[in-house]
Amino acid sequence: MNFYQTLEWRYATKKMDPSKSVSADQLERILDAVNLAPSSSGLQPYEVIVVSNADLRRKMLPIARNQSQVVDGSHVLVFAAWDNYTADRINTVFDRTNQERGFTSEAGDNYRKMLLAAYPARSADENFQHAARQACIALGFALMAAANEQVDCTPMEGFDNQALDELLGLPAKGLKSVAILPLGHRDTQGDWLVNLKKVRKPKDELTTVIA
Amino acid sequence: MNFYQTLEWRYATKKMDPSKSVSADQLERILDAVNLAPSSSGLQPYEVIVVSNADLRRKMLPIARNQSQVVDGSHVLVFAAWDNYTADRINTVFDRTNQERGFTSEAGDNYRKMLLAAYPARSADENFQHAARQACIALGFALMAAANEQVDCTPMEGFDNQALDELLGLPAKGLKSVAILPLGHRDTQGDWLVNLKKVRKPKDELTTVIA
Repeated sequence: MNFYQTLEWRYATKKMDPSKSVSADQLERILDAVNLAPSSSGLQPYEVIVVSNADLRRKMLPIARNQSQVVDGSHVLVFAAWDNYTADRINTVFDRTNQERGFTSEAGDNYRKMLLAAYPARSADENFQHAARQACIALGFALMAAANEQVDCTPMEGFDNQALDELLGLPAKGLKSVAILPLGHRDTQGDWLVNLKKVRKPKDELTTVIA
Repeated sequence: MNFYQTLEWRYATKKMDPSKSVSADQLERILDAVNLAPSSSGLQPYEVIVVSNADLRRKMLPIARNQSQVVDGSHVLVFAAWDNYTADRINTVFDRTNQERGFTSEAGDNYRKMLLAAYPARSADENFQHAARQACIALGFALMAAANEQVDCTPMEGFDNQALDELLGLPAKGLKSVAILPLGHRDTQGDWLVNLKKVRKPKDELTTVIA
């Protein structure tokens, strides 16, 4: 399948086949794509909790409005964003970049100073909202990478964030959940959505061209 | 190039070659990918303003911290999210889906009622933040589609949102800018970033596996 056939193949899977698992290789490639997503200033202000443990996924089920993909798939990716930007977190990223590239630069140092002056002074909520958007770019990469592997998935935002954060111990890590993504394989017979037309805005409602 | 080679090829282009344009076909395919991105409840709470007009891009330049890609590329995509969820907007999406699929369902009607009860009652800011995250998923799709076309781009969030909104007349459309994406072709000679190592988190810092 080419890029666009892959995009058409992808859909928000409503029923997954519990007998089929995502392989370790497929999972790693999806996470590779997540790690290659760009983020504002390269800060990657998010982590991904990969839950394959069945007991834990059963506990996540009521938190996710009993959407069965959480247990019928083989893995759930939890996209969690930094709860705030701190000087430590910013410095860690810039120090790593300098180390891996083998040099420092005045421009890089000035950019770091600019972020250190701006971000930690903002409210935690403003910073979390900003970080959550970056997590959504990475989520987009995961969606496309999964489709590229012919792995089905279902992005979900409608869950009890606070309950999930507590279940996974995210507050202690300075993280807050943004979206979850069950991974698995579609149960074509049992899925009400799989054969319905994919509906999108007419292109001229999506876009305004100023030429 | 395969999917991962494309992801490695992509980078936040710092210097674009003003003599090279993105073709109309490439642009349409990138916008097709944007329109195929999934969004929460399928609402697609965003629009994309496609600016190729050179005068307008020159006016955008100081608003975008004088980042030259805005004028050196051939197009700028402005990702703008709904400033709020309203009953009209929600109903338009559900009505279109019913019309295109040719039927209504009790489950669909109940889901619509649930959204109508929940979203318009929330604050405009909460709804905009939610819509902005959806726009970022679509931005992720644009980034990958551009790379698939061997089109360079530079996602930007560091600009004066209010000034851009006013310049483009977004408030009258009920939209607020989230990110801008200049499209063009890299100037390999003039770009300080193109040959530097792509630095990302170590995989074990990105992910926590609970097996």
